[in-house]
Amino acid sequence: MAKNLTRSPLAPAEFPALPVIEGVTFAAAAAGVKYAGRTDVMMAMLAPGSTVAGVFTRSATRSANVLDCQAKIGGDSDAGAAIVVNSGNSNAFTGKAGDGSVAAICNAVAMATGLPAARVFSSSTGVIGEPLPHDRIIAKIEELMGAQDETALGAAAKAIMTTDTFPKGATRSVEIGGKPVQIAGIAKGSGMIAPDMATMLVYIFTDAKVARADLQALVSRINDWTFNCITVDSDTSTSDTLLMGATGASGVMVTADNAEFEAALFDVMLDLAHQVVRDGEGATKFVTVTVTGALTDADARTHALAIANSPLVKTAIAGEDPNWGRIVMAVGKSGAAADRDKLSIRFGDILVAENGWVASTYREELGAAHMKQPEITISVDLGIGLGAATVWTCDLTHGYISINADYRS
Amino acid sequence: MAKNLTRSPLAPAEFPALPVIEGVTFAAAAAGVKYAGRTDVMMAMLAPGSTVAGVFTRSATRSANVLDCQAKIGGDSDAGAAIVVNSGNSNAFTGKAGDGSVAAICNAVAMATGLPAARVFSSSTGVIGEPLPHDRIIAKIEELMGAQDETALGAAAKAIMTTDTFPKGATRSVEIGGKPVQIAGIAKGSGMIAPDMATMLVYIFTDAKVARADLQALVSRINDWTFNCITVDSDTSTSDTLLMGATGASGVMVTADNAEFEAALFDVMLDLAHQVVRDGEGATKFVTVTVTGALTDADARTHALAIANSPLVKTAIAGEDPNWGRIVMAVGKSGAAADRDKLSIRFGDILVAENGWVASTYREELGAAHMKQPEITISVDLGIGLGAATVWTCDLTHGYISINADYRS
Repeated sequence: MAKNLTRSPLAPAEFPALPVIEGVTFAAAAAGVKYAGRTDVMMAMLAPGSTVAGVFTRSATRSANVLDCQAKIGGDSDAGAAIVVNSGNSNAFTGKAGDGSVAAICNAVAMATGLPAARVFSSSTGVIGEPLPHDRIIAKIEELMGAQDETALGAAAKAIMTTDTFPKGATRSVEIGGKPVQIAGIAKGSGMIAPDMATMLVYIFTDAKVARADLQALVSRINDWTFNCITVDSDTSTSDTLLMGATGASGVMVTADNAEFEAALFDVMLDLAHQVVRDGEGATKFVTVTVTGALTDADARTHALAIANSPLVKTAIAGEDPNWGRIVMAVGKSGAAADRDKLSIRFGDILVAENGWVASTYREELGAAHMKQPEITISVDLGIGLGAATVWTCDLTHGYISINADYRS
Repeated sequence: MAKNLTRSPLAPAEFPALPVIEGVTFAAAAAGVKYAGRTDVMMAMLAPGSTVAGVFTRSATRSANVLDCQAKIGGDSDAGAAIVVNSGNSNAFTGKAGDGSVAAICNAVAMATGLPAARVFSSSTGVIGEPLPHDRIIAKIEELMGAQDETALGAAAKAIMTTDTFPKGATRSVEIGGKPVQIAGIAKGSGMIAPDMATMLVYIFTDAKVARADLQALVSRINDWTFNCITVDSDTSTSDTLLMGATGASGVMVTADNAEFEAALFDVMLDLAHQVVRDGEGATKFVTVTVTGALTDADARTHALAIANSPLVKTAIAGEDPNWGRIVMAVGKSGAAADRDKLSIRFGDILVAENGWVASTYREELGAAHMKQPEITISVDLGIGLGAATVWTCDLTHGYISINADYRS
C-alpha cells in the first residue's frame, strides 16, 4: 500500500471463510516489487483439465499483462494453468520492456511448473509507467511453488491489494443435481474504478466442470451486470482483469444455461463488486442508483452512471445534503432521453420530486435523515418507457483528494 | 454567495476597465432573492434596433428561463430589448410555477418599459428546485429602470455571481473600415461547468451593427471553441445561457464573415471562459490540455476532455505530482482511437513519454518543477492523424469538496 490507510467504514465486518476449491492451490510471497515488508505476489495453480475464462479492460492503453492474457484466454488445453499476480507496479505503459517482463515471468513459471507458457496468466497492479522489476518476482517462483496451499486464497487476496483498505473475498455454494458445487473469489480495487470496461483484478474459482466457452459466456454475461455497474471515480484502469478458473474437481457438469450456477456466480461477482465500491477511495457512503422508466435499458444505464459519476451529486452525498437538484442536473446532462416534467426522484422510499417539481409530501428533514445513513438509495423514474438499470457507487470526499493528490509521492 | 469564499489564487489582478457600449445601459439591485445585503438582480436595456443572439445549455432538464429565452431568441424586432438576471435561485426544476415566474417577470418588465414581452430575456442562477420568489424581483423593476447607467456593466457582473470568488469581465476594441467597434462582456460560473452544452451565464454587448442571423452564426461558432472547451467538474448546468446584444450604435456594419470582428469576439469569449475556469471551485491550477495527432478533431476533443475531466489527473495536478501515467489512463479510457505505442506526452515543453514509455531524456524533477507552477500545460500527441483540440480546466482540490459538500446548507 502507498501508505497506511484507515479501514473503510463501509468494509464488511470480517473477511469471509472461504472454502477449499478442489483442484486449485495458492501461495503469496513478499517480493519487494515496490514496498518492503508486505506480501505483493500471489500464484494460483489449477489442476490439469481446468478451464479458464476472463474479461478485461477495454482501455486503449491497457497493460502488457492484459494484452498477453487476452491473447491466451481463448485457447483450449488439458494442461493445468497458473495465475501470477503482483501489486506495486502495473507494468502499464512500459513499452517493449513491459512485454518483455510479462514474457520473462510467464516463461519462468512455465519452466518451473512444466506448464505451457500459454497456460500461465499474469496480472500486475500499481503505479503506471515504471519498469516492472520482474527479476524480483521470478526470484520468488520456487518459494511460491513450495508454499502452494489449498487454503491460502485469503493470503492471495491480501497480496494483490494496493490502496485497498481491506482484502475482498466472497463465496457461494450451490447444489446442482443433488451435488454441492463451490465458488470462491477474491478482488482488489478502490480507485480508478469505472464500468463499461470490465473491472479491477478479480480471480474466481469453482470446482464445477464447465467447458471453456460456457465459462466465458457466463463470466461475460454476469460481468455486464456486476463489475460493469460499479464506479468509484469514473476513471478506468489500464489493468482491469477478471479471471475465472473451473477445475471440474466436483465432477458436476455445468453449462452456460444452468440457472442455479449462474445465480450463485452472480452473487459472488456482485458481492466482490460491492466490496470494491465499499473500499472506494475516501468512501463514507455506499450508494445504489436505480433508474427505471427510461426509453431503453441502455438509456437507463447512461442516466444512472451520469448520476453516479457526477462530482456534485457525490459531494452532496458526502455532505449528507439531500440536494436532489443535482440529480435533476445529472439526468439532464446525460444525453439520454428524459422529460423534465415526467421524472420522479426517491431517496429510499421517500418521494422527493415528481411532475417536474418537488413533491408536495416531501419534507427536507426526511431526505436529510436518509442521507445520514451509511447506505443511500437514489431512485429515478423517468416515466417515458420500460428501460431500467442499477449501478453502485460511493461518495466523493476529502479522503479521495488526500489519497490521490500524493499517491505516488 | 453561499458563504464567504476566498478569492481564487488564479484570479486576474483586477477587473478590467470596461468601455461604454453605446446603446446599452445597466443597473443592479439587492432584491433579497436568497441572501440579504448583496446585489442579486441586474437589468440591461438595449436600444431599439439592437439584435440579440444566444446559445443555451442542452440539458434535458433546463430551466424555465432557458426554455423561454430559446423560444424568443430567433425572433426579429426593431424594438429594444431587456435582459433581467437574478442570482440565488436558478428557477430550474420548478415545474409549472417556474414557467409562471418567468412569465410574471417578463410581463412586468414589458409593462414597465413598453417593450414587447418577446423582447424581454431572463436568466436565473443558483439553487435548483426551490420556488423563485419572483415578486421580490418584480418589486425592484422600477428601481432598476431608474438606475440605468451606461457605465454599470461591472456592477451587473457582481450581481450575477453565485459561488464565484471574483466578477468576470472582458473587452476588446477593433477597427473595422477605419472605425472603432467595442465589445464588452461579463460572465459568472465556477462549478457545474462542463462543455458540450453551452456555458454558464454570459452577457456580451457590442456597438457594431450585426444582423440577427449573422450575430447568431458568430456566437454559435465561437462558442464551440471557447465556452464549449472548458470544464471544471464535468457537470453541466440546467441554466447555461450566453446572450449577446449588438446595438449598432457605432454605425459599423459587421457580417458573420468579418474576420477582425470574429477575432475580437473570440478573444472576449475565450477571456471570459478562461476566467470561469480560473474561478473553478477550489481551483489552484489553470490547466491547458492540448491533443494533436488524433484521427479527427472530434477524437482529439474526446481525449482532451477525458484528461481534463479525470478525477485522478485533476487530483495529481492538485498534489503537484507529475503523474503522467494517469494521462495515459485517461487517453485509454476515452473511447476515441489511440495507439499505446505511438502517443507522446509533454508537460510544457518537457517531453515526458514517447513510443509507449517514459522518454529517455525525462527526469522526474523536470516534471515536478512544471507542476509547481500555477499554470500547467499538458500536451498529448497521438501520432495517428491530424485531429487537434485544446480544452481548459482546473485541478480538483479539498476546496471543491468543502464548497460542494455543504453548498445548500
